[in-house]
Amino acid sequence: MPRQLHLNAFLMNTGHHEASWRLPESDPYAHVELDHYVRLAQVAERGTFDSLFLADGPQLWGTLAQRPAGALEPLTLLTALATATEHIGLIATASTSYNSPYNLARKFASLDIISGGRAGWNIVTTAGAEAARNFGLDAEPAHAERYARAAEFLDVALKLWDSWEDDAIVGDKAAGVWGDDAKIHPPRHKGAYFSVEGALNVPRSPQGYPLLVQAGSSEDGRAFAARYAEAVFTAQQTLPDAQAFYADLKSRTAAAGRDPGHIKVLPGIVPVIGSTEAEARANEQALEDHIVYTHGVDRLERLLQLPEGSLELDGELPTDLPPEDAIEGAKSRYTLVVELARRERLTVRQLIGRLGGGRGHLTFAGTPEQVADAIEEWFTQGAADGFNIMPAVLPSGLETFVEQVVPILRARGLLRTEYGSRQTLRERYGLPRPANQYSTQEPALV
Amino acid sequence: MPRQLHLNAFLMNTGHHEASWRLPESDPYAHVELDHYVRLAQVAERGTFDSLFLADGPQLWGTLAQRPAGALEPLTLLTALATATEHIGLIATASTSYNSPYNLARKFASLDIISGGRAGWNIVTTAGAEAARNFGLDAEPAHAERYARAAEFLDVALKLWDSWEDDAIVGDKAAGVWGDDAKIHPPRHKGAYFSVEGALNVPRSPQGYPLLVQAGSSEDGRAFAARYAEAVFTAQQTLPDAQAFYADLKSRTAAAGRDPGHIKVLPGIVPVIGSTEAEARANEQALEDHIVYTHGVDRLERLLQLPEGSLELDGELPTDLPPEDAIEGAKSRYTLVVELARRERLTVRQLIGRLGGGRGHLTFAGTPEQVADAIEEWFTQGAADGFNIMPAVLPSGLETFVEQVVPILRARGLLRTEYGSRQTLRERYGLPRPANQYSTQEPALV
Ligand SMILES: Cc1cc2nc3c(=O)[nH]c(=O)nc-3n(C[C@H](O)[C@H](O)[C@H](O)COP(=O)(O)O)c2cc1C
Ligand SMILES: Cc1cc2nc3c(=O)[nH]c(=O)nc-3n(C[C@H](O)[C@H](O)[C@H](O)COP(=O)(O)O)c2cc1C
Repeated sequence: MPRQLHLNAFLMNTGHHEASWRLPESDPYAHVELDHYVRLAQVAERGTFDSLFLADGPQLWGTLAQRPAGALEPLTLLTALATATEHIGLIATASTSYNSPYNLARKFASLDIISGGRAGWNIVTTAGAEAARNFGLDAEPAHAERYARAAEFLDVALKLWDSWEDDAIVGDKAAGVWGDDAKIHPPRHKGAYFSVEGALNVPRSPQGYPLLVQAGSSEDGRAFAARYAEAVFTAQQTLPDAQAFYADLKSRTAAAGRDPGHIKVLPGIVPVIGSTEAEARANEQALEDHIVYTHGVDRLERLLQLPEGSLELDGELPTDLPPEDAIEGAKSRYTLVVELARRERLTVRQLIGRLGGGRGHLTFAGTPEQVADAIEEWFTQGAADGFNIMPAVLPSGLETFVEQVVPILRARGLLRTEYGSRQTLRERYGLPRPANQYSTQEPALV
Repeated sequence: MPRQLHLNAFLMNTGHHEASWRLPESDPYAHVELDHYVRLAQVAERGTFDSLFLADGPQLWGTLAQRPAGALEPLTLLTALATATEHIGLIATASTSYNSPYNLARKFASLDIISGGRAGWNIVTTAGAEAARNFGLDAEPAHAERYARAAEFLDVALKLWDSWEDDAIVGDKAAGVWGDDAKIHPPRHKGAYFSVEGALNVPRSPQGYPLLVQAGSSEDGRAFAARYAEAVFTAQQTLPDAQAFYADLKSRTAAAGRDPGHIKVLPGIVPVIGSTEAEARANEQALEDHIVYTHGVDRLERLLQLPEGSLELDGELPTDLPPEDAIEGAKSRYTLVVELARRERLTVRQLIGRLGGGRGHLTFAGTPEQVADAIEEWFTQGAADGFNIMPAVLPSGLETFVEQVVPILRARGLLRTEYGSRQTLRERYGLPRPANQYSTQEPALV
């Protein structure tokens, strides 16, 4: 069997295009209704996707006027979807800056048990002062500090998830001995950011712990990914950039002493599909026509950390923007946007049009064959182990992808045709179940 | 229609009796498996219970040897049950001492939306140093301080849940206006324990916010309940004690300016059912025979804050125990246990036997008629608005209750015979949907 593609359905509102909610087919309340997500999850399972993914930030973004705001909290929503689906992985975003390791480790372990080993965690450090101010801080912690805290958070969480050996439960009714206390390992952690004394109050879960996913592409983000991540989401605009990112991440992972095959790289793609190329472009244009450009200017000014009113819709970006080093927010996204505008000499209006669909992810308009070709090219040319599929409009964009692109990928032998026997999310991604760091058992001879 | 009983199924492990896991029928892994809870939830829905309830503490209790340890995190588990049930309320315990208001408010709002208005929060302050040490503290905060933090936590959470007015979403596609920013009210809270600036990122939920439940019976606990709680769980050993508690809580609630009908008091009862009284007592004895008394001594010493080795199995409690004031842990449970032992002159062994079933809740062994009589007596004699049903063995004890006691309660007109149309949890408990504190709308004339 040839190497298999990994597909992750990135679900967001009525679609990743910011104007998608204005289309006649869209329900403006959909993103805060369970049924919308149940339907999407079922479509993704029909398409034998590896996983579903929900992004997150603990703050209300921007204004309500401009587009759907608010969301269902991802861990909660994905837990509800666990009982409405059978095979698909469930990847929830949660912040290391605004959670406690004990609470978060419990929730992921519980979801992993409840879903039969389908939980994944998109580990983020959360940029922005808005989030910080909801958690007692005046301003966001510095980028490097957020990543330092993230690393300690992971070390503690990994200890908690391993704090029960797999065979700690004995269940000897006759003797009245339920478990073996020698197989419990309290972390007794005291560090710069956390002290956590006791063992987790959840047994080790089917996967050992959730699939660890990461989505920051800055220098610190990549270093973190090389050390901990098993899958990486990334926004890449061109094949050469994606190849460079892929090669860099694999070699950093090897340098960190890990198997580079054990980190899967998934760039995002916003497929806009038409039965002809012209129809696909017309679909793209129909979405762009619904953009409210003044709102786009506000958001771009925030991302670029410019004062309000600095950008002109029909001008270009200022030439004296600061270097990525000076940005404390989302570093890699900043660089991507600035480079995109410069490379293609886009006006602010054109840039907003380009970002409206995928916020920096690759938007690809074409026929189902062309979309499959693009996916295959990146997959076989060292740019991707799979994709974050980010439909511009939901649910229709996911339905179209599953009905029209998935069969082509299957026919080419790139994508499974069915799930087969029950597997964990980590098994689907072709990754081994992690050993327990405290385990005293000899590894089995194979 | 006569006043209606409210029934809450308190689900714990393979039952509330500490030795229940040792019975032949019990699965020692059940408490960490989803299927166990799905089955229990469905039985409780057959019995037209108002709600399910899960207790919680963010620490691993005691040793594994003695009895089933660990649990699925309650908010996670109840969210999974939301999609496996249709009518029943879902009451999750969460701690105000070890959570952030923004995170917790989001999760409950999300569960309330996902379940169609069935979420409830058992608000606890969490006694014990073990929990504190999992969250960066050396020792548990003092009792009064825990309750002061709880009150501020509630004030912030209530602001967050009201931060979207009910009609904040406009959804005007033609104008490109999704929501009305004038209907968003950031808390801008700065207090002794929390500062929380921004609005919640979840719209106002079907119930406005989860049903607020409280379970501490100390002086501080009652004051807190009178101010915030809509339902109160309590452990009461005798009818006069329960009547006194009931009257006290209702009058405190009235004194706090609230309708005393808007706080429902639910004592716990552990029904041990047999077809004759003798059979019921034999069932109780069979459970007691499985108790490992040395473990019971350890736990009792902890509760009473005595040094290890102070208690003799066949002696009585020391006469010089400290007053409740000196206890920083679970104050009201301490007093209940001490009074029970003194009133009935129990040896330590007998006390452990009595606590083995319900940890201080009323254990009642009898025929289905006798159990129904006891419930009716407390319900009609000013001791209860309903009950926390705490089966000694699960699932069988809940099944027996639903098959044998529920029909009697229904025949007496005390309990609904079916759910009827979809209702929120708060409607089931006969409570009004709370108004939004920021709402600018005139109240509707009715
Ligand atoms: C597909 C994808 C999804 C992301 N999802 C989130 C998210 O849900 N929450 C978040 O705070 N950041 C998210 N990010 C952003 C990164 O996690 C990170 O915060 C951002 O890229 C800045 O990190 P960097 O400075 O290391 O580049 C996402 C990035 C990508 C590529
Ligand atoms: C039915 C019932 C359930 C309870 N559940 C919990 C719980 O899940 N977690 C917890 O920390 N305390 C729980 N408690 C204990 C109280 O919330 C409280 O912590 C304890 O009684 C001490 O409070 P007090 O000092 O105000 O009496 C429960 C009490 C009762 C009566």
